[in-house]
Amino acid sequence: MSTAPLWIEGSFRPSADGGAGFQAWNPVTGRPISGEYPISGRCDLEAFLAAATRAAPILAEAPPDAIARFLEEYATRIESHAVALSGLAHEETALPVRPRLFEVELPRTVKQLREGARIARSRNWREPVIDTAANLRAQRGPLGKPVVIFGPNNFPFAFNALSGSDFVSAWVAQNPVLAKGHPGHPHLTEALAHLAQDSLDVAGLPPGSIQLCYGLEESSGFALAGDSRVGAVCFTGSRPAGLALKAHADSAGIPFFGEMSSTNPVFILPGALDERGEALATEIATSCLLGSGQFCTKPGLIVLPSGPPAETWIGTLTGLFATAPTAVLLAAGVRDRFEAALARWAEAGARRLTALRPIAEAGFRAQPALFSVDVQTFLAHRTELETEAFGPAALVLFGVDPTEMPHLAAGLEGQLTATLLSAHNGADEVFYAPLATVLRMRAGRLLNDKMPTGVQVSPAMNHGGPFPATNQPGFTSVGLPGAIRRLSALYCYDGIRPARLPAELANSNPVPGLWRLIDGTWTTGDID
Amino acid sequence: MSTAPLWIEGSFRPSADGGAGFQAWNPVTGRPISGEYPISGRCDLEAFLAAATRAAPILAEAPPDAIARFLEEYATRIESHAVALSGLAHEETALPVRPRLFEVELPRTVKQLREGARIARSRNWREPVIDTAANLRAQRGPLGKPVVIFGPNNFPFAFNALSGSDFVSAWVAQNPVLAKGHPGHPHLTEALAHLAQDSLDVAGLPPGSIQLCYGLEESSGFALAGDSRVGAVCFTGSRPAGLALKAHADSAGIPFFGEMSSTNPVFILPGALDERGEALATEIATSCLLGSGQFCTKPGLIVLPSGPPAETWIGTLTGLFATAPTAVLLAAGVRDRFEAALARWAEAGARRLTALRPIAEAGFRAQPALFSVDVQTFLAHRTELETEAFGPAALVLFGVDPTEMPHLAAGLEGQLTATLLSAHNGADEVFYAPLATVLRMRAGRLLNDKMPTGVQVSPAMNHGGPFPATNQPGFTSVGLPGAIRRLSALYCYDGIRPARLPAELANSNPVPGLWRLIDGTWTTGDID
Repeated sequence: MSTAPLWIEGSFRPSADGGAGFQAWNPVTGRPISGEYPISGRCDLEAFLAAATRAAPILAEAPPDAIARFLEEYATRIESHAVALSGLAHEETALPVRPRLFEVELPRTVKQLREGARIARSRNWREPVIDTAANLRAQRGPLGKPVVIFGPNNFPFAFNALSGSDFVSAWVAQNPVLAKGHPGHPHLTEALAHLAQDSLDVAGLPPGSIQLCYGLEESSGFALAGDSRVGAVCFTGSRPAGLALKAHADSAGIPFFGEMSSTNPVFILPGALDERGEALATEIATSCLLGSGQFCTKPGLIVLPSGPPAETWIGTLTGLFATAPTAVLLAAGVRDRFEAALARWAEAGARRLTALRPIAEAGFRAQPALFSVDVQTFLAHRTELETEAFGPAALVLFGVDPTEMPHLAAGLEGQLTATLLSAHNGADEVFYAPLATVLRMRAGRLLNDKMPTGVQVSPAMNHGGPFPATNQPGFTSVGLPGAIRRLSALYCYDGIRPARLPAELANSNPVPGLWRLIDGTWTTGDID
Repeated sequence: MSTAPLWIEGSFRPSADGGAGFQAWNPVTGRPISGEYPISGRCDLEAFLAAATRAAPILAEAPPDAIARFLEEYATRIESHAVALSGLAHEETALPVRPRLFEVELPRTVKQLREGARIARSRNWREPVIDTAANLRAQRGPLGKPVVIFGPNNFPFAFNALSGSDFVSAWVAQNPVLAKGHPGHPHLTEALAHLAQDSLDVAGLPPGSIQLCYGLEESSGFALAGDSRVGAVCFTGSRPAGLALKAHADSAGIPFFGEMSSTNPVFILPGALDERGEALATEIATSCLLGSGQFCTKPGLIVLPSGPPAETWIGTLTGLFATAPTAVLLAAGVRDRFEAALARWAEAGARRLTALRPIAEAGFRAQPALFSVDVQTFLAHRTELETEAFGPAALVLFGVDPTEMPHLAAGLEGQLTATLLSAHNGADEVFYAPLATVLRMRAGRLLNDKMPTGVQVSPAMNHGGPFPATNQPGFTSVGLPGAIRRLSALYCYDGIRPARLPAELANSNPVPGLWRLIDGTWTTGDID
């Protein structure tokens, strides 16, 4: 069995490291999928870095039209292969083709690529600022070095190292991409690579602009994250892997942007429980079990107010979890870590509410699980009980006096999201403000009366949050142009002669839709 | 001799650590200044962190008017004590009262505090973004944790941990400040602390909003930078100290913003040398020797084109350095490190052009020094020869073919600034573009035909640059509101009920001058 080629400097060629390969697995059957992929080491990395370093200055000077053209071509190609790509993704991830892959995730990915093209053309990611009196002009620009992207397993399109938000962000900022595809879905990523190469050819951009590897020896992954030829590192995945890569990037002074788990607490206030408890239980169970519970923003910790309705409500939620079908997880490792996280919850004093049933089917399956714990136990073991269980499970924290919720919230780890469910009749207003005030600074996104699992591609989105949800609370990894800001540098032009200024900073605005902050006023106009 | 009190939670009280103290030194006389300051350890830090943690949520909710009021009161107090403060600063730093301290640096500092007040009132640092269709609204907000600021020695007002750009940035973003004053000028910093406390009282803000220590045991400094109660760490100073603190902040996932040395290369193109060589020599010598060469943006590396005019020009520059008066440096340690850096240059093959003269006067003095080196030697020892010599010295790199300058520039370390001096008659245009293209991505600020030592407070300034000049190429530490962005978090409001939105994100714009990006359009208007 020959090993699949890497994508290096515009061609598809075998790994030069000659190490062991790996296979993808079908999570439904639990059997390997035919075809072997290489695990890259130092030789491959050297080739990647050399090619990307050659491409970087060319890409930095490329016309915005070529950058946009690539994204549009790529989006169109993904769209026209949507059926085949969704099928590949399904085989490798077990995520349903419909609605998830074909109707939701792939279209969202295509939309984001096109949004990137629009912003590349408008150049609004550059955020030009001009001080005419001082003759100082500044804007964002490329890093001049490649961006390394470690893609996650759970969104094979929308967060793929070769098509997700990090990819679009790095690309619009005109940085070469060094994609480390997730080993869970290499066939899909390989298919994307071919579409990307065709699109690069059409756009006339240098080989080495985008490259791909599938697997990395651990030491090579660390070496890559800490190589001074790298401009930035993006990572979406587990906390231990993220922190290990971050340490290597940190030691070389390389900006690291990691998204590294979150329990996404949902606080239910007593009025909401009274008013629409049953509807909320359905909403929470649906959100929690979506995609087999493998969302970064899955509501994993449900905080219930003290009082008798809580007991009935927990029963309702337990019923929904208990009757939900067995979930297929992305990989054997995901299943094992999920079960280990549940065992840790149990050890720390949480009670399993859903009965353990034997799983008869093959594949990487887990039973949806609901746990509960009282406040005292939670506070005594919060490190263990705040650990994310990545999969179809939630922990209900019950018996919390609503006036004590702010104190509880203050001790939470940094989160991607925090949700507040309150009565529509005003009964919860007395509790809302003190809790929201505390919760606000513990999470990147605060929600009212809806579930956090939807992450819209919008300039006003924040898919980010305080450490350890991410390591930079000022940034979002979804939503343009915000996410691009992470992967750009700030460049000031001081007394530069007019003919030498980049077009975006000239007196005359080069693009109709380009917003510039000129002497304190945002305008699409010229300097007279 | 009793030790000066620390400023902790609104009162001036002795260090609880009871360790050894230190004295400031008069650099002109080389003798200690009367008055001892404490070196803080774990007990003091615990008090600081506990107080700041109490203040953080209150400050985060404080009205913008109170935040601005403090800055205005403080600015006015500094202004009305300008003579005394400049005198104190002079005694501790030897920087001239006029024009430097009284006429330039103090007014610049006051202006920056008032600029901060203006932005706190306009709320423009929050950068609100609203997507009405998705009902997503986002803006920047406080970190909810204190910002630790390590101030440098070389700008006792403009970069003081208690009055500089990091201070204003942290404050406008409504974060408590934990100031670590530089031990070189504790009397000045103590005087500022009293003015700040009076201003806090007027503004009615919590004690613990701003606190101050003067010295820290090394292990306590590291513990502070890596304490999870800290929201961000700002540092301006030497590279070894910066990197050591950064490692501790990194390991705790705390954003670190370090400005850590730069040689600020100046490239002279042949036409400019022909056209105005003598004027350029004067300009460079003046800029280089300004403030005894103790500017972060001092032009420390002068790249000269090959050809006969270069030799004469070096002679002219050498004359200017040789006849410049002996410089007084900030401290004995600064002088020693300066001399050590020159010795390292010499060892690596650079030639000292200015004769060594014995220094008769007392104090921490150094002789202005000009060195030169040829390209081959430079390329063979670039690590040593790119090392910043913080003080009145520059290295002239001669014999560089202008067509080889881009290659040379490509290998430079990340810089705060890079300067290009070219002919006005167009003779250098053939060299300019290739060099500027490469240099652009090596420095935060690119200059034409002027010296880099002026760092204006402007929204279009970038006082930043690629690693190792700083560790985050996307940020400036001077220029508002850019510098504030570093010390804020991004917060998204998803489906939040209208009455619960922060004022800045409501449909109706709460402040006449507040710019908001609404559905892709920057406007100061309302949502209808």
